[in-house]
Amino acid sequence: MNTEKTPITLEKIVSLCKRRGFVYQSAELYGGLNGVYDFGHVGTLLKQNIRKSWLASINAASDDILMMEGALLAPQEVWNASGHLANFNDPMVDCLNCKHRYRADELDLNKPCPHCGQKKWTDVRMFNMMFKTHLGASEDQASVAYLRPETAQAIFVNFKNIISTNRVKIPFGVTQIGKAFRNEINPKQFLFRMREFEQMELEWFCSEKTAQTDFEFWSQKRLGFYETIGIKKNNIRLRAHEKDELSHYSSATSDIEYQFPFGWKELEGIAYRTNFDLTQHGNFSKKDLSVFDDETKSSFVPHVVECSVGVDRLFLTALFDAYDEDVAEGEQRIVLRLSPILAPIKAALMPLTKKQVEPLEKIYRDLKRAGYMVQFDESGSIGKRYRRQDEIGTPVCFTYDFESETDRCVTARNRDTMQQERISIDKIEEYLAQLIK
Amino acid sequence: MNTEKTPITLEKIVSLCKRRGFVYQSAELYGGLNGVYDFGHVGTLLKQNIRKSWLASINAASDDILMMEGALLAPQEVWNASGHLANFNDPMVDCLNCKHRYRADELDLNKPCPHCGQKKWTDVRMFNMMFKTHLGASEDQASVAYLRPETAQAIFVNFKNIISTNRVKIPFGVTQIGKAFRNEINPKQFLFRMREFEQMELEWFCSEKTAQTDFEFWSQKRLGFYETIGIKKNNIRLRAHEKDELSHYSSATSDIEYQFPFGWKELEGIAYRTNFDLTQHGNFSKKDLSVFDDETKSSFVPHVVECSVGVDRLFLTALFDAYDEDVAEGEQRIVLRLSPILAPIKAALMPLTKKQVEPLEKIYRDLKRAGYMVQFDESGSIGKRYRRQDEIGTPVCFTYDFESETDRCVTARNRDTMQQERISIDKIEEYLAQLIK
Repeated sequence: MNTEKTPITLEKIVSLCKRRGFVYQSAELYGGLNGVYDFGHVGTLLKQNIRKSWLASINAASDDILMMEGALLAPQEVWNASGHLANFNDPMVDCLNCKHRYRADELDLNKPCPHCGQKKWTDVRMFNMMFKTHLGASEDQASVAYLRPETAQAIFVNFKNIISTNRVKIPFGVTQIGKAFRNEINPKQFLFRMREFEQMELEWFCSEKTAQTDFEFWSQKRLGFYETIGIKKNNIRLRAHEKDELSHYSSATSDIEYQFPFGWKELEGIAYRTNFDLTQHGNFSKKDLSVFDDETKSSFVPHVVECSVGVDRLFLTALFDAYDEDVAEGEQRIVLRLSPILAPIKAALMPLTKKQVEPLEKIYRDLKRAGYMVQFDESGSIGKRYRRQDEIGTPVCFTYDFESETDRCVTARNRDTMQQERISIDKIEEYLAQLIK
Repeated sequence: MNTEKTPITLEKIVSLCKRRGFVYQSAELYGGLNGVYDFGHVGTLLKQNIRKSWLASINAASDDILMMEGALLAPQEVWNASGHLANFNDPMVDCLNCKHRYRADELDLNKPCPHCGQKKWTDVRMFNMMFKTHLGASEDQASVAYLRPETAQAIFVNFKNIISTNRVKIPFGVTQIGKAFRNEINPKQFLFRMREFEQMELEWFCSEKTAQTDFEFWSQKRLGFYETIGIKKNNIRLRAHEKDELSHYSSATSDIEYQFPFGWKELEGIAYRTNFDLTQHGNFSKKDLSVFDDETKSSFVPHVVECSVGVDRLFLTALFDAYDEDVAEGEQRIVLRLSPILAPIKAALMPLTKKQVEPLEKIYRDLKRAGYMVQFDESGSIGKRYRRQDEIGTPVCFTYDFESETDRCVTARNRDTMQQERISIDKIEEYLAQLIK
């Protein structure tokens, strides 16, 4: 048997996602929608676990966290103030010969078209990456709305409402999890650069005085998060932006990067955005977005530290980091060594034969009622069932066999060590509680 | 003191939502976006609890439930097959004098314009309610995509993928919670008819033989759900559609209706959709969407029973149903008698004076760590704090006072009865667990 490991490629991840129902190409039945994906059963569970652990980590770091969920549609005034209408562009160029379209900043225009080999470029034009639509039945300028390209602005635009309805004082944070949209010229690398994606953002409002300290505090907290969800330390790093990398609104930014097969890439951005956003919205709306400082007896526009990570990008990261190939029970297998916290299914319950279905179903229902996401898995040989559960990252399989009726025990088989132990049926719930703690 | 109750109006609910940060008009800073709303801290928590209890109720009713999360953007082919491009229209009419626009089916065109009093109507035109946008940089026909007007189609389009990656057999269900968009001509009644909203849908795939029985099973289960989340029985009813009300694809539909101040209105729709959707997608995509029946040794296209409810509409329902005005501790108050399951904040922790802040903070952190959404509330008189918590529906307030340090007890004050009892600090977690069971 060939046990040498081949490199983990994007293709392997895509194939696993499709085979096990993590991710489907959106509208695949009609040829697919480029850069847009649907999430199947185990994918949806993994996303839920990602959101839940992210929220828990933010709330563990601070007692002053609020939530909100803003609409995905927003009028052009918002994007005027935020700068997205003027600046959220990618440079685009077409090949006049084969009509292929490229991002101009990803090409050398002195060279021929990588697709057809001719060198007939159009001029480079700027392309705004927001999706535009119209509200109401008329298509005039007044009705224009855009799908938000980031969740952050919904928090800034609601800042006054948040302050006045929640009795909070600076510093405090507002989290938001939700969809965002970017009309990428060339979506690529599967879930890495999508046109429709999901963000998890924290906007931390503070005074200018504490901003730098807060920026460092959150950078460390966010880095620590990835350890708690089992991402390998060697594959994660915090990298401070050089001065010339900084956005116009930021005076300090660090990326948390992950080592993908296609290089170290941004997973999360932590940015000290100064008070740029609130100042812009104050100016454009002509409303006062300042708060009063009891200490200095003066008003100021709060500064902001932002932590922003993509659910889908973290989903892809978790899969890359957990993916492994080895030999189990004498067979080659693919195994997702996901942290039990992230694992879509916490345990599989396997009757050895049809005779064990009924008593095991009772255990299954009890665990389900207790809130554990467990799966009843009865078709195929035990080996086949293990392979299936290994591929979706299920940490433990419990087999109910001929002896279970008399000794009131099941066999617990560990995904990673493949070791088996006999445990009492009464202890299953405790076993699972321990696992996902 | 005047204790006579005035009717619960939409205005009262809107005002409470704004004042306590449940809901904000979207982009209010720039004059607002009609029919689009943002959810603040307690609103987000209420939505989370609605989603969670809905999912739990579906999974309690059946062991054969999968999940998915489809994209919000879908290409026109999907909406051709579903019939939305041809049929998802509202009739629209304009007043030539004042330019006001109306839904023609909600007006009597023999009468003058309700806004300006003149009678100068345009012809009635059909208006498609889907939001249109373009993917990629060119605005040609090939790039057209629409924001989905319902979540259901994402499940139908993925049916083959779901079957082949999850080892399921008919009958089984697929749930999806997610945003949908309808370009309403006249959005109205706050969260009741929105342009951007959120659906919770179950598509139950079954054979034609069991469809009618399954339809009745789910109708009863869904009706029972509202009782479990505390909606008053008198305000809820199941109403079967008359033959002439049925959609073209449905051969049986029932609505679960709620008695709003503006009448009995649809809260949830339960529809036996026959095998219309899968047949359409099979025909339009030229793919085989049938499954094999082991019993009859033949293939068939599954039939579907759909249960569909809006998160936002249920949000509004829960508020209407829970809203009450009475007298508490000698003061008039507004109180949300929400089921503890739905209540955004499960308990408020109140130090009597500054001296009690520190010991109570420890209790607060322990409860937070144990997963309870609790709030530390220290500003203003105890009476004021009660009023605040009553208005957001917090079922219990625990006050830590001068004696707490010695007797290791707090005072638990019940939202509904306003009764107070002394309970041991060690029992708080158990108390809360009991409350939300």
